[in-house]
Amino acid sequence: MKFYVLTLFPEMIDTALNFSIIGRARKEDKITVKAVDIRDFSTNKQRHVDDYPYGGGAGMVMQAQPIYDAFKSLGTGEKTRVLYMTPQGKPFNQELAKALSKEEEIVILCGHYEGVDERVIEEIVTDEVSMGDFVLTGGEIPAMAIIDAVSRLKSGVLGKDESFEDESFSEGLLEYPQYTRPVEFMGRKVPDVLLSGHHGNVDKWRKEQMLIRTYEKRPDVFEKYEMDKKEKAFMDKYKKERHGENV
Amino acid sequence: MKFYVLTLFPEMIDTALNFSIIGRARKEDKITVKAVDIRDFSTNKQRHVDDYPYGGGAGMVMQAQPIYDAFKSLGTGEKTRVLYMTPQGKPFNQELAKALSKEEEIVILCGHYEGVDERVIEEIVTDEVSMGDFVLTGGEIPAMAIIDAVSRLKSGVLGKDESFEDESFSEGLLEYPQYTRPVEFMGRKVPDVLLSGHHGNVDKWRKEQMLIRTYEKRPDVFEKYEMDKKEKAFMDKYKKERHGENV
Repeated sequence: MKFYVLTLFPEMIDTALNFSIIGRARKEDKITVKAVDIRDFSTNKQRHVDDYPYGGGAGMVMQAQPIYDAFKSLGTGEKTRVLYMTPQGKPFNQELAKALSKEEEIVILCGHYEGVDERVIEEIVTDEVSMGDFVLTGGEIPAMAIIDAVSRLKSGVLGKDESFEDESFSEGLLEYPQYTRPVEFMGRKVPDVLLSGHHGNVDKWRKEQMLIRTYEKRPDVFEKYEMDKKEKAFMDKYKKERHGENV
Repeated sequence: MKFYVLTLFPEMIDTALNFSIIGRARKEDKITVKAVDIRDFSTNKQRHVDDYPYGGGAGMVMQAQPIYDAFKSLGTGEKTRVLYMTPQGKPFNQELAKALSKEEEIVILCGHYEGVDERVIEEIVTDEVSMGDFVLTGGEIPAMAIIDAVSRLKSGVLGKDESFEDESFSEGLLEYPQYTRPVEFMGRKVPDVLLSGHHGNVDKWRKEQMLIRTYEKRPDVFEKYEMDKKEKAFMDKYKKERHGENV
């Protein structure tokens, strides 16, 4: 899988994605990340790629032509998805990550300054994607997040020990709490059930923890989860005891 | 303002935040970012900081002790907020960024592998924060996003040309489209009103674009926005013409 990043800071992308699991995936050619410097496609001596906004206002706007030429230089296929990182876009989530992981190549355009000339967005972008309702100085960090989230879904990127089915959202619930050695830390003990060696009880306890945590921390996620009879009985009891709710 | 990042990949944080506006803010000592290697606080020769999960299951869990010792080594104040990046947390948004920008120092704990021993989270973490409903290989990229979003709100971090009031979410609406030179690109022309030099008309057009874009792209954001009479009249007309809605 190939990621192209159109950016004013190619080095930022290149260095930051040289570590950990994604760094290893790049070295092993499981994925390719190519950061392309938009400035290389400036047509002026000063390598400027931005100009004042028409209609006035503070800030500078990235011009259409250098971005368009940088994009054209990639020689990507006609159906290649081109993502533009903007708070205006649809929220990036695990579902979109899964869909993108089926692509052979993806282009990510990173904006800066006040924004990007609307016409080049209309011309080349297929997906406006948001990392969330907050403002960053540029699209590079969101681009890295997308490359990370999508890459780890590609076969061979995660090692045997790292690829687990039971992770956040995969079952529509948050994860259960994790504990490792030692048995006691700062007076806090590992829950007995985890030391019991009784797999059935461990699984039951973990499932209950997932239900409780999702209910308490992410009611919006909990609402979408369809409980079976046993789970519903457990949560009814929990709500009653914990919150005195009538259910 | 001081950011401490507890991580297995301090170099990743250090290099990636050396660019653009945040890199400049660090050089000018407007902000300090100190990435601390959790491995330096391992008590074994192999510098291991993870172990198998109690109760079984795939993946490795980061141990409490090295994280706790790394945190203690910072000597931060008792009221310092300690963020842990996890999909279980409350969503990071501009409101939280604003609140954090009022702090003098912030600690960010980056998890990896299957997770972090629950007890050290209970012991040191004040805020569990989520970047969104997707899974990453580690907390480093979200940590960078937080540092970026918070730093740019600190006085002196953005330059005069970069600090603008009229940006995403600041008025509760999405931004208007931006255009810069040339007037025509790929057959697409800049809207006439922006070339008119009539400030009143430009402002009116931009406000209308903000309303339309928010309505079309982010109905959830639009719903929370309180329109004045003029805005409501405009949107009623727009909805009727565009969507044939009765309002």
